[in-house]
Amino acid sequence: MSDTPPEIDDLIALMAKLPGLGPRSARRAVLHLVKKRAMLLVPLADAMQKVGATVRECLNCGNIATSDICTICASERRATGEICVVEDVSDLWAMERSQQFKGRYHVLGGTLSALDAVGPEDLRIPRLLDRIKSENVTEIILALGATIDGLTTAHYIADQLPEITVTSLAQGVPVGGELDYLDDGTITAALRARRAL
Amino acid sequence: MSDTPPEIDDLIALMAKLPGLGPRSARRAVLHLVKKRAMLLVPLADAMQKVGATVRECLNCGNIATSDICTICASERRATGEICVVEDVSDLWAMERSQQFKGRYHVLGGTLSALDAVGPEDLRIPRLLDRIKSENVTEIILALGATIDGLTTAHYIADQLPEITVTSLAQGVPVGGELDYLDDGTITAALRARRAL
Repeated sequence: MSDTPPEIDDLIALMAKLPGLGPRSARRAVLHLVKKRAMLLVPLADAMQKVGATVRECLNCGNIATSDICTICASERRATGEICVVEDVSDLWAMERSQQFKGRYHVLGGTLSALDAVGPEDLRIPRLLDRIKSENVTEIILALGATIDGLTTAHYIADQLPEITVTSLAQGVPVGGELDYLDDGTITAALRARRAL
Repeated sequence: MSDTPPEIDDLIALMAKLPGLGPRSARRAVLHLVKKRAMLLVPLADAMQKVGATVRECLNCGNIATSDICTICASERRATGEICVVEDVSDLWAMERSQQFKGRYHVLGGTLSALDAVGPEDLRIPRLLDRIKSENVTEIILALGATIDGLTTAHYIADQLPEITVTSLAQGVPVGGELDYLDDGTITAALRARRAL
């Protein structure tokens, strides 16, 4: 808009690049920020600056960290024998929310993909193989998405590790899920992996 | 989450306060920011800081400005005889997008509301009456929402100004609107304000 201050236009253009916000919701968010300057705009700018200055990747596992090694890798309460391999930090957070896994993680940073020309060297796979040698690992749990690329990546990693236990998350009916709404592939997987009650 | 850096948790909590973002989409946005640190996180923090430091309310009309008087009030290309009264800056932006109005604005900062105990002194209504005396205004265009509070505010303002022309936006069928989807009130208003073809 010609008569809006350029500072506001710049902020709207940047906010519109966030996932989940478009031009219209970015405008609404910026107006909200301007109205709540002391309560929201200034703290948010400070928080972003702080994250920009301190947050980096864990050199060991690729998780988000504020020092060279993330809190999970540095924690003594975490079991060292198990590594859960995930595609992205958001998947690590999802695993942590379930509060079931007490080992450590390895964030690949993506999946192998023939279409996008992503090979093992583009992911943190060599680093994973190094860790397995040095950290006395007995089990690798593959928590990758049930997509073609996810499955390809899982098989590739399993092929590299014939000498240790490699497991993957079970596939089946989600908790609270109704059969009527499930796709054929999920029902087929759930039927194949059926268990005695 | 216990093992996430507190800087990240703080940023997620603040982002979740933005309109249109909840806890889940705030997490997604923050991960996106961390990944695009140079391209998005740092520029966004700078843009917010800049807006926080420079942007204020126009002393004349209440619009967003970077100096005491906003660009619209300061512009010589804008007609001085007409003032369009809007509730909020977002409404001013909506009017500007239509590129039809060439006069100046007055942002009330809300509507009169008996329920929320908002009186004329809580809005920029006294300032509007001052402007009408000092700026040689011939027409006031009320572009307020078609809600009870919007209509109450419009009538209150019109009552204060018996000596000048006070108009308000027409009510009727929106462009592209289908009768089947319109509420009874809109159809009633459109029928009452029908025009000869």
